[in-house]
Amino acid sequence: MNSENFSISEKIVSPAYIRQGSQARRSHEQLIRLLLEQGKCPEEGWSESTIELFLNELAVMDSNNFLGNCGVGEREGRVASSLVARRHYRLIHGIGRSGDIAAIQPKATGSSLLNKLTNSVVLDILKLSGVRSVASCFVVPMATGMSLTLCFLTLRHKRPKGRYIIWPRIDQKSCFKAMITAGFEPVVVENILEGDELRTDMEAVERKVQELGAENILCIHSTTSCFAPRVPDRLEKLAILSAKYDIPHVVNNAYGVNPMLMECRIDAFVQSLDKNFMVPVGGAIIAGFNESFIQEISRMYPGRASASPSLDVLITLLTLGASGYRKLLAEQKEMYTYLAQELKRLAEAHGERLLHTPHNPISLAMSLDGLQTQSGKSVTQLGSMLFTRQVSGAR
Amino acid sequence: MNSENFSISEKIVSPAYIRQGSQARRSHEQLIRLLLEQGKCPEEGWSESTIELFLNELAVMDSNNFLGNCGVGEREGRVASSLVARRHYRLIHGIGRSGDIAAIQPKATGSSLLNKLTNSVVLDILKLSGVRSVASCFVVPMATGMSLTLCFLTLRHKRPKGRYIIWPRIDQKSCFKAMITAGFEPVVVENILEGDELRTDMEAVERKVQELGAENILCIHSTTSCFAPRVPDRLEKLAILSAKYDIPHVVNNAYGVNPMLMECRIDAFVQSLDKNFMVPVGGAIIAGFNESFIQEISRMYPGRASASPSLDVLITLLTLGASGYRKLLAEQKEMYTYLAQELKRLAEAHGERLLHTPHNPISLAMSLDGLQTQSGKSVTQLGSMLFTRQVSGAR
Amino acid sequence: MNSENFSISEKIVSPAYIRQGSQARRSHEQLIRLLLEQGKCPEEGWSESTIELFLNELAVMDSNNFLGNCGVGEREGRVASSLVARRHYRLIHGIGRSGDIAAIQPKATGSSLLNKLTNSVVLDILKLSGVRSVASCFVVPMATGMSLTLCFLTLRHKRPKGRYIIWPRIDQKSCFKAMITAGFEPVVVENILEGDELRTDMEAVERKVQELGAENILCIHSTTSCFAPRVPDRLEKLAILSAKYDIPHVVNNAYGVNPMLMECRIDAFVQSLDKNFMVPVGGAIIAGFNESFIQEISRMYPGRASASPSLDVLITLLTLGASGYRKLLAEQKEMYTYLAQELKRLAEAHGERLLHTPHNPISLAMSLDGLQTQSGKSVTQLGSMLFTRQVSGAR
Amino acid sequence: MNSENFSISEKIVSPAYIRQGSQARRSHEQLIRLLLEQGKCPEEGWSESTIELFLNELAVMDSNNFLGNCGVGEREGRVASSLVARRHYRLIHGIGRSGDIAAIQPKATGSSLLNKLTNSVVLDILKLSGVRSVASCFVVPMATGMSLTLCFLTLRHKRPKGRYIIWPRIDQKSCFKAMITAGFEPVVVENILEGDELRTDMEAVERKVQELGAENILCIHSTTSCFAPRVPDRLEKLAILSAKYDIPHVVNNAYGVNPMLMECRIDAFVQSLDKNFMVPVGGAIIAGFNESFIQEISRMYPGRASASPSLDVLITLLTLGASGYRKLLAEQKEMYTYLAQELKRLAEAHGERLLHTPHNPISLAMSLDGLQTQSGKSVTQLGSMLFTRQVSGAR
Repeated sequence: MNSENFSISEKIVSPAYIRQGSQARRSHEQLIRLLLEQGKCPEEGWSESTIELFLNELAVMDSNNFLGNCGVGEREGRVASSLVARRHYRLIHGIGRSGDIAAIQPKATGSSLLNKLTNSVVLDILKLSGVRSVASCFVVPMATGMSLTLCFLTLRHKRPKGRYIIWPRIDQKSCFKAMITAGFEPVVVENILEGDELRTDMEAVERKVQELGAENILCIHSTTSCFAPRVPDRLEKLAILSAKYDIPHVVNNAYGVNPMLMECRIDAFVQSLDKNFMVPVGGAIIAGFNESFIQEISRMYPGRASASPSLDVLITLLTLGASGYRKLLAEQKEMYTYLAQELKRLAEAHGERLLHTPHNPISLAMSLDGLQTQSGKSVTQLGSMLFTRQVSGAR
Repeated sequence: MNSENFSISEKIVSPAYIRQGSQARRSHEQLIRLLLEQGKCPEEGWSESTIELFLNELAVMDSNNFLGNCGVGEREGRVASSLVARRHYRLIHGIGRSGDIAAIQPKATGSSLLNKLTNSVVLDILKLSGVRSVASCFVVPMATGMSLTLCFLTLRHKRPKGRYIIWPRIDQKSCFKAMITAGFEPVVVENILEGDELRTDMEAVERKVQELGAENILCIHSTTSCFAPRVPDRLEKLAILSAKYDIPHVVNNAYGVNPMLMECRIDAFVQSLDKNFMVPVGGAIIAGFNESFIQEISRMYPGRASASPSLDVLITLLTLGASGYRKLLAEQKEMYTYLAQELKRLAEAHGERLLHTPHNPISLAMSLDGLQTQSGKSVTQLGSMLFTRQVSGAR
Repeated sequence: MNSENFSISEKIVSPAYIRQGSQARRSHEQLIRLLLEQGKCPEEGWSESTIELFLNELAVMDSNNFLGNCGVGEREGRVASSLVARRHYRLIHGIGRSGDIAAIQPKATGSSLLNKLTNSVVLDILKLSGVRSVASCFVVPMATGMSLTLCFLTLRHKRPKGRYIIWPRIDQKSCFKAMITAGFEPVVVENILEGDELRTDMEAVERKVQELGAENILCIHSTTSCFAPRVPDRLEKLAILSAKYDIPHVVNNAYGVNPMLMECRIDAFVQSLDKNFMVPVGGAIIAGFNESFIQEISRMYPGRASASPSLDVLITLLTLGASGYRKLLAEQKEMYTYLAQELKRLAEAHGERLLHTPHNPISLAMSLDGLQTQSGKSVTQLGSMLFTRQVSGAR
Repeated sequence: MNSENFSISEKIVSPAYIRQGSQARRSHEQLIRLLLEQGKCPEEGWSESTIELFLNELAVMDSNNFLGNCGVGEREGRVASSLVARRHYRLIHGIGRSGDIAAIQPKATGSSLLNKLTNSVVLDILKLSGVRSVASCFVVPMATGMSLTLCFLTLRHKRPKGRYIIWPRIDQKSCFKAMITAGFEPVVVENILEGDELRTDMEAVERKVQELGAENILCIHSTTSCFAPRVPDRLEKLAILSAKYDIPHVVNNAYGVNPMLMECRIDAFVQSLDKNFMVPVGGAIIAGFNESFIQEISRMYPGRASASPSLDVLITLLTLGASGYRKLLAEQKEMYTYLAQELKRLAEAHGERLLHTPHNPISLAMSLDGLQTQSGKSVTQLGSMLFTRQVSGAR
């Protein structure tokens, strides 16, 4: 309520109480002020009460919620179902304009604020996670793979001769498809075994570059998150190579906001929203160290986009706060260590061993040699035993 | 958001759009201002967006939602379940104080405003419905019957010798029970048949008053809503009698906010919230023409009470607006006329007749003589046929 | 979905997955089955997902949610506002019948189940909290004070000569009012100081009983929760006295589900829902060791009542589970010990002392002698200092 | 509840009522059965109660809601914020698999059903809207423009030599951008003026085809919804031309599900979800007459996608029902006629005229010659006058 309404309220409830109520309101406003001023994830998470107040405030600024609005156009934020309106907090206009997914939408001041703030808060969290020199990022309501496609399509305009994408092998269908969909030819470079680990074969990569000719290569497409015994690509070496041959470098960083990312020729990196921020599937962050290139990508999205993933990630980060997010990262590390230790014990008890893959901080692999030799028992059976015990995620 | 936050927002989204957004917010504030200033039901219903904004504003004024609140007492609005918190819009403190259900609660400025406004808006609607000179009312989270009990208990203190309650017969268990629970002896006065109508037997009432002695009578307890062929009590005549013998007069007006109510000795009248305002069962309005007596009743409720019925009725009246409420009243009339007409046709087609009960504006009765005489068919069977066809409410 | 719909779904999504989905549904059903079968609070709390599923299931059983229902009566669970319908999970019919607040409501099978289960789960929690031989209880949507009033009104019918209520003094307005509202004369018995504690003066109580005559006394009204240095009444001794003189004994147990309660002549005890179950203000539990007397009370409530407090307490207990509730009780004890220790340190640092009140397990008192003697400083000032620091609940 | 739980309930509430409740549940199940069996939009809209019951049923089938699930993978439908979980009805896993946006997701049976049913119901509505021979469609959580990009990218694999897209001019940035982003060269064909209407210049289109060579043309990209005085492209003639030269034909049908669409060489058409189904911005439908080509497109989306737009459109269509949707279409026509009539009157009153554009059924244009000649008054001023009067959508 504004000060006028607080004054009137003093005639209904005693002025001292109204003053206290108005101060209480002010303390929520202060949190909102900090967010608007700094564009950073608050250190401490907000209460649901503050979050909903804030989202309501954003919604009333969108033209579909104007009292007395007379919308005669084709795109006026009309909603037929109140269930739908409610679940979007009446933020109906989506984000961006036809020209740019990161742009301000004149009919939707609140949604525009939401979009800008989300991108800003996410940037802050990327820095906090270790990518200190990241310059720009934006949330897209598309899968990681489709977001990579958009990056590749943007590069096409800068490298009209680029036909190939150099890609150290990684067994994930959507990464491969991202290149195919964009219309490029993936050049798969097999990894080499170092100890138990499957690592980027730098020499093979460089050979390919020389063989195909740098100008014919759209970009190098590396991956930082994968299942053991594959370990993340040698990002720094690939980045140096990229710089040496002046080839763009796009990083699929889907599974982890990754502290090792550095500037030395990484043009863009993409990460999954759900894997990094515990929100529903369907969004990604496209980020980079060069603001203007990231803007170019954001200007390639044709049309206004769904605000739903942005809304989810903003609510989530405001709820967790930076401290909550750090806590989750710490827990993840702890769990990893614990899992490694217990898996090792288990492996040894069965004459198997936990593979030594120290460069992979998110995944573990163990041998199943015994299963393969024994008749009547198979890896498939193990899989179905895990399935019926509701253990999912093992491969 | 306050003006400071709007200013900061201008650095994120262009000032012109923020200004428009801020004006849009202002238009919601204007509606709230009118409500606070006039305490009346708005002519036009509010959008859900304005209602939720308003309820959020109320909630942040309650101490359980203060950021940094340190509650060490036994009653601090603690809520264990977020489902529960949410469904009450985080208004947890209830209404009233131990001293008075209509009083301001220091720990809950927002809930207190809610309570005061609800009572004020309901008073306005009572006037609009035809009870123009009603002076005061309040919502209680109790059934109509229990609310009548509270009225009788209040009267006891004013009439220590009163043992009897004069009650023109009406076949509703809870009305009877209301008197028994309060500890009084109902004196049932049978009605007389005038044409098809069962009406108050004024002579019998007066005889009873004389017989028992006015000072031994706690009050006359009349009823304005009932099932045909019973028609509403002769309220004006009972009121004149009450005045003549100086006996309080309490009206059970459960089923209908009733325009015929007049001042001439009605001490209090009670109506059901769900029947008159389309909210969940469980609340009532206690109203009257003498403010101080209604206050006495409100001061008899020992303890703080549930705000839930008040919240429901306020949301409902803000949603409907006075115009929406009037429209519902008009529809009810139309439906009644239509039902009467069709029931008449039906009755005639089966050799029965619709009883002529013009004094009962909410209920209709038809003869079922044919059923009673025919062997093998019974009223019970008809009832069960209606039941299996999901027709409820017939008697 | 029923098995038929699962079968049809197998044509859309593969049968193996549908089977798994159907088993998942079954695991929720199992939880519901246990609840229905045992009527006890589940040991582990339910997920919100199970709770909402269950409430939806209840709601579809109420006639207002019947598809194709044709309600022509005055009480059909009509709701004008979808905000209101939603916040009550579409359970609109309230609880009980005009005859009995604990009775089954024919138009509302789901709400009736809700009512029965809530009372049953609450009974289980009372036992778990230490009142092992409690026989019956029910939730009423009324303040503790008003619930006490209802108990007293019920007793009136059993003890027509009872005019007085013996009441060891306790400074809580609503307890006093509960007796006044019911129309009885409170006979206040002052407490005696034992050490730092203010305790029930058993001799004075007995003297009063003899003086007034047992048959003229409606009941003894004792209190188990209070602010130090007052300590809970000597319940066992009062119960023995009650038995000796054959006087009913009603216990105000508002602030704490209290393990010391015993059978030896306690007719009914009342506790606040919000203080014991962390739900919004406005409900109470009326309980006792004699099922038939508790039923008599439940039959005194005239009319159907609000289901809102029952819904809140059921959601809360299903969310917490018995283990969660026990954990809260344990935390409360820990917090008390910690508070006592720190208050003692604080008191000593300022030359004051923490009063020794071992019989009061929920409240602490410290001397403020220094404040009273020093000029320019007062107890009021201390209060306002606490207030501005948002510390509430201190007295 | 399953039949077992209904049986147990009969011990708590009387069997007759439970039976009625169970039948009531069955009537909801019947609606769900019809939907599952037929995959069509129900003729009559569902109540919110049925919709929420259904969504809850879907959610419990997803593995993130399995009680006792042990998810160790990177994608387990984890959600940090309960606000977020709730607003998605706990459907967290998105839609599709990395291989195909229309595929079944093993971890999410409920979301998979949602996806399949939504596509099926939308197909039904497309047919109902007049596109009777449409064979296949799917919802994508992307803007119309980005969806067109995906269509063009799919065509690239079928027409490796295709560099140009023939595009009858239309002033919408995102349509143009859709081609640029996909990496093709738009060949703009100017329209010709026929009376007041701007129409497709069929001769110019054919000239361009011959000039560039059919094999070098990726596709013809036509538009069926636009602002007057531009009228929809001559779809039939373009389709005949497409067939003649064997060039794919992609139709941007954004603003209107359009009954004139016919089979004669239309490879795919795309429409906006928000403009056609009154849901939040951000989704589109890709549809066509050849099932296998539409499947090819759905297999081009790399990764799992957001279920949010599918959820919105399913809720909306279940709420409206086919009858509700038809009613909206009829209203739209009525409003258009009314607007045309009133605009004509207004134009004539000011010496202007309403342009005669009978081929454009969704947009109207009037001359503003007077404004342009008068000094001191300008079109811009008119625009700002409309803006301050909250009239949006005029151009």
